[in-house]
Amino acid sequence: MEIKVVKTDHLKPKPTGALGFGTYYADYMFVYDYDEDQGGWHDARIVPYGPMEMDPASMVLHYAQETFEGLKAYKAKDGRVLLFRPEMNARRFQNSNKRLSMPTLPEEDFVQAVNDLVKFQEDWIPTGEGESLYIRPFMYATEVAVGVHPARSYKFMIILSPVGAYYPEGVNPVKIYVEDEYVRATLGGTGFTKCGGNYAGSLAAQVKAEKLGYTQVLWLDGVHRQYVEEVGSMNVMFKINGKIITAPAGKTVLPGVTRDSIIHLLKDWGYEVEEKHLDIKDLMKAGEDGTLEEAWGTGTAAVISPIGELYFKGEKVQINNFKTGELTQKLYDTLTGIQWGVLPDKFHWTHEVK
Amino acid sequence: MEIKVVKTDHLKPKPTGALGFGTYYADYMFVYDYDEDQGGWHDARIVPYGPMEMDPASMVLHYAQETFEGLKAYKAKDGRVLLFRPEMNARRFQNSNKRLSMPTLPEEDFVQAVNDLVKFQEDWIPTGEGESLYIRPFMYATEVAVGVHPARSYKFMIILSPVGAYYPEGVNPVKIYVEDEYVRATLGGTGFTKCGGNYAGSLAAQVKAEKLGYTQVLWLDGVHRQYVEEVGSMNVMFKINGKIITAPAGKTVLPGVTRDSIIHLLKDWGYEVEEKHLDIKDLMKAGEDGTLEEAWGTGTAAVISPIGELYFKGEKVQINNFKTGELTQKLYDTLTGIQWGVLPDKFHWTHEVK
Repeated sequence: MEIKVVKTDHLKPKPTGALGFGTYYADYMFVYDYDEDQGGWHDARIVPYGPMEMDPASMVLHYAQETFEGLKAYKAKDGRVLLFRPEMNARRFQNSNKRLSMPTLPEEDFVQAVNDLVKFQEDWIPTGEGESLYIRPFMYATEVAVGVHPARSYKFMIILSPVGAYYPEGVNPVKIYVEDEYVRATLGGTGFTKCGGNYAGSLAAQVKAEKLGYTQVLWLDGVHRQYVEEVGSMNVMFKINGKIITAPAGKTVLPGVTRDSIIHLLKDWGYEVEEKHLDIKDLMKAGEDGTLEEAWGTGTAAVISPIGELYFKGEKVQINNFKTGELTQKLYDTLTGIQWGVLPDKFHWTHEVK
Repeated sequence: MEIKVVKTDHLKPKPTGALGFGTYYADYMFVYDYDEDQGGWHDARIVPYGPMEMDPASMVLHYAQETFEGLKAYKAKDGRVLLFRPEMNARRFQNSNKRLSMPTLPEEDFVQAVNDLVKFQEDWIPTGEGESLYIRPFMYATEVAVGVHPARSYKFMIILSPVGAYYPEGVNPVKIYVEDEYVRATLGGTGFTKCGGNYAGSLAAQVKAEKLGYTQVLWLDGVHRQYVEEVGSMNVMFKINGKIITAPAGKTVLPGVTRDSIIHLLKDWGYEVEEKHLDIKDLMKAGEDGTLEEAWGTGTAAVISPIGELYFKGEKVQINNFKTGELTQKLYDTLTGIQWGVLPDKFHWTHEVK
């Protein structure tokens, strides 16, 4: 893939102070057009970040053919710029796009686009403790039509946002509301994809949980409303009697890159990891009798998010006295250590940007 | 609501020949902005149709907070301009927006905006046999942010498209594929709303059905994959042993305006209408033993779409020898007669644009 560069003299000042998440955007973005009439993908380019023209009848505004990915670039102490398993994002993006009847992008083009844009915007990678450059690849339908059909034209884009440490005051447990009304995904649906519709549909539960004093929701399956699936927009894992349990990914559950990496680490350390449908009643019982030793969410933004309390239908259980568990902390330290190039990378997960 | 008008001298030529669906757009559109910081809705305006500026980090492109409606304006032979039950669209739009954690629009503002835009663009209503002006109200999140949360700013817009007759050669039956892999909706999800995500997720099944030689899919419920819900993007009804059966709307099934109107007509004509979850096996059996007398889809675009064949897991049944049923035709003639102002409107469904 040949990538053209269109330069600008109007560079923005770099942000100072707290970065937050998705508040600032880098000077440049990547754009790639797809047109069925023009043989597919064409005109890969790095251009100044800025608004695009959008016809009000563009299909993305009506039928939500839109998918995205999320990953980060890290500046190592030795100056190297590191990505974490970008090929995993490329493959998941292909699976999302197939399910949404959208065109796919070759894995090597996805990784090259991310690599080249990050290289070009290397000075946008923040270097404060826990800071990184969030990378948001996304694709959406651009055809101008209000008839319902797979669009014939799309845009694939990548934007960059310098983000702050997720836990500026150290890793801390959160309170989770087990959602028994709203459903995120069901078999035969889009649960395994990163498509916009999954997120729009999940907001009502998040708003409800926050009103009740909880940070995130825990989703149950759509068929029985009984089996644990995800937590907010993260995968979720439980340490029960020394064994780690997490929901199987790929159908109703997103196959998280962090999830997969954590499973590798755990197995490498000798833990038994079982991917199975855990009954919420068994989980609450394990919380009550203390066999539920630790619980955590996994995702790109937070890496690891310890869970300190679960609420389900009037019943509450505390996990590890609302303290971050030993294994939870070790997983966080190890994975972030590999991501920032501090710890050895025995699984060859890091991709050096060149 | 005060609506300002921004005029242009650059009017488009009106289309000639076949109109199709969503091919042409009128000269003007309606735009209304919502900003949490500015007390909500502001700046209602009718402006020339054209592209908008869209930041690549606009939330609608990532998390699909987007909802829409669809209705039509009809030019009666006596020159009146008629809408069909626009208040029903206004109320359903509110329900969609609530589920997607989006702001709602007062019913009277929705109807006024539709009324005033159509009045202003009256010369865009085509007058050929079966032609009408398709009206597409829609709302989407405009906040520039990649964090997942309900957006703080939105746009509500209405665009207009002159459309041709759905059946230029008369009403004809279609072949339907009963989908047993993909699922459109499940309890606790967004099935009852007109949100973009519902449509993006349904495309894969539609593509599959078309490849197999079918026009549309019939959706089964997401929990048991056993009960009939909708057909394509229409509601569906069956006449079995003289009685009409259709799925209950409002949870996993869209509460269609055409659906509701047809139920009123049928009851008025003395038919028994049962809103219940029909087992696909019972439906196929009724098709085999001939007690399934007629079947049709209902929706704004086609009004009534007769079903001539059902395919489910290797088994096929024909309905009424693949001919449009007597009742199906009568429903089509009556409803379109009311919509175009030809037949008496005893239910007071038409809204005259003034």
